[in-house]
Amino acid sequence: MTHTLVSSHKKEVIIGFDKPFCVIGERINPTGRKKLAAEMAAGDYSTVEADALAQVAAGANMLDVNAGIPLADEPAILAESIKLVQSLVDVPLSIDSSIVEALEAGLAVYQGKALVNSVTGEEERLEAVLPLIKKYGAAVVAISNDETGISEDPDVRFEVAKKIVHRAADFGIPASDVVVDPLVMPIGALGQAGVAAFRLIRRLREELGVNTTCGASNISFGLPNRHALNAHFLAMAASNGMTSAIMNPLHEEEMTGIMAANVLNGVDTNCARWLRKFRAPPAAGSQEEARSARRRRRG
Amino acid sequence: MTHTLVSSHKKEVIIGFDKPFCVIGERINPTGRKKLAAEMAAGDYSTVEADALAQVAAGANMLDVNAGIPLADEPAILAESIKLVQSLVDVPLSIDSSIVEALEAGLAVYQGKALVNSVTGEEERLEAVLPLIKKYGAAVVAISNDETGISEDPDVRFEVAKKIVHRAADFGIPASDVVVDPLVMPIGALGQAGVAAFRLIRRLREELGVNTTCGASNISFGLPNRHALNAHFLAMAASNGMTSAIMNPLHEEEMTGIMAANVLNGVDTNCARWLRKFRAPPAAGSQEEARSARRRRRG
Repeated sequence: MTHTLVSSHKKEVIIGFDKPFCVIGERINPTGRKKLAAEMAAGDYSTVEADALAQVAAGANMLDVNAGIPLADEPAILAESIKLVQSLVDVPLSIDSSIVEALEAGLAVYQGKALVNSVTGEEERLEAVLPLIKKYGAAVVAISNDETGISEDPDVRFEVAKKIVHRAADFGIPASDVVVDPLVMPIGALGQAGVAAFRLIRRLREELGVNTTCGASNISFGLPNRHALNAHFLAMAASNGMTSAIMNPLHEEEMTGIMAANVLNGVDTNCARWLRKFRAPPAAGSQEEARSARRRRRG
Repeated sequence: MTHTLVSSHKKEVIIGFDKPFCVIGERINPTGRKKLAAEMAAGDYSTVEADALAQVAAGANMLDVNAGIPLADEPAILAESIKLVQSLVDVPLSIDSSIVEALEAGLAVYQGKALVNSVTGEEERLEAVLPLIKKYGAAVVAISNDETGISEDPDVRFEVAKKIVHRAADFGIPASDVVVDPLVMPIGALGQAGVAAFRLIRRLREELGVNTTCGASNISFGLPNRHALNAHFLAMAASNGMTSAIMNPLHEEEMTGIMAANVLNGVDTNCARWLRKFRAPPAAGSQEEARSARRRRRG
């Protein structure tokens, strides 16, 4: 049973087939959020703070932190954001950047065992990122594309993932510290994107024995009623072996899908989380009120 | 690719891995519905009529018809109900009874190729029901329990299903005309009921090559927020190969789960059904209205 352990200075989280699905909050990311980008570039972290607290309150098990702002000092802003978020919440973080210097700046200030997001199968990235993962004893998200791009063939994506796992092993990084992102495509454009993802997730679990993650909302891009599609995609992916997702924990429908998947996959022991969330409050008081009301009507 | 063809006098439905999930409406069933039982026993079929029309309007692809009323003339009532329902709607029917004489009475009046619900792995049932299936050229739901009861072990249930498929073959009934019900247990009582069902459904698909069905709502018995659990169970089961379910098509959440599963399994071509149901109506008119409103305010 593959366990990917990540931690903060205060808390450990284990990603695994026999564990509740790991929700990685995606909100702290200025990509496509102009206001947040401007704030972070100006040294204003108030939205970062609010997003950190709100996501953990909504049930995120980890938070992704990204500071990808054009023309800004990304390494410094990422490090600052990570220090701030770690001072506010105790969940482990995913350090997210396409710039190796930013990843290193984040790792240098991080307290605990981080998840680094991400490495691809491109030779240059492998050579730059994997030594950092080893140096800091981190875990890493492996994205299953390489120099040739993103294949539509899930079997090609499987081979890329396998290559990354093998290269990580060469650097002394165990497969349990590689969390593969199978790359979920928009199903509105590619009708077989769902079955391709499910097939790949299952092979990654059964043949490569690795944990998996994905940017879940991509599946529903361009379609109406996205929350319902995302929620059922997450549950179906979890049923095929997906163990985490980078997603918005403030979306109720998606979180209900994850909670249902945990119950149905037998990893919400005694349905305790489901009952805590959805069980109606004790009815004793209201029954008493109803009886009083009836007495009053009769009286 | 296994195809189970069922039909009415007007319409064919194919149950199969490459087809949209087949929703079998469960409402025409007096079990636990005292008022309906009393009506049917008294020859009043108004609720049967209303339930038939409402379920097809809600998207049922087939209807289950059951007339199990204690001390009533079940064969006559079942035959009457089937004639009536076939006069009202054109979807194929599932003829549902635990009494062999009732199944035969239903089959005798049915126009088309029915699904018979059900046969178990019990020797006496096999000997009584399978000849009827062969005689009328019907398909049959095979419930994976036998004289020893319902095993909690999905591998034992698989063996029972396999035995039924083999016995059906002895009677000249192809495996494609056997739709196996893996028997879904309440997850509130048996925490591994979900994974047991998914595992069994996958084996039935991959090793036995048969279509599957189940009474889906059983999974959530005794738990709060049942619709959400049922919806995600259906999607997860479909992702493991389940191709139909006996369920209440009037429940919006469950039907959304089925529709999402069809999109994600790549069997809702071009997401056409999803778009038809959820795409917002054209906004041209309302935009014009908004412009007029602005002009009026300015004027």
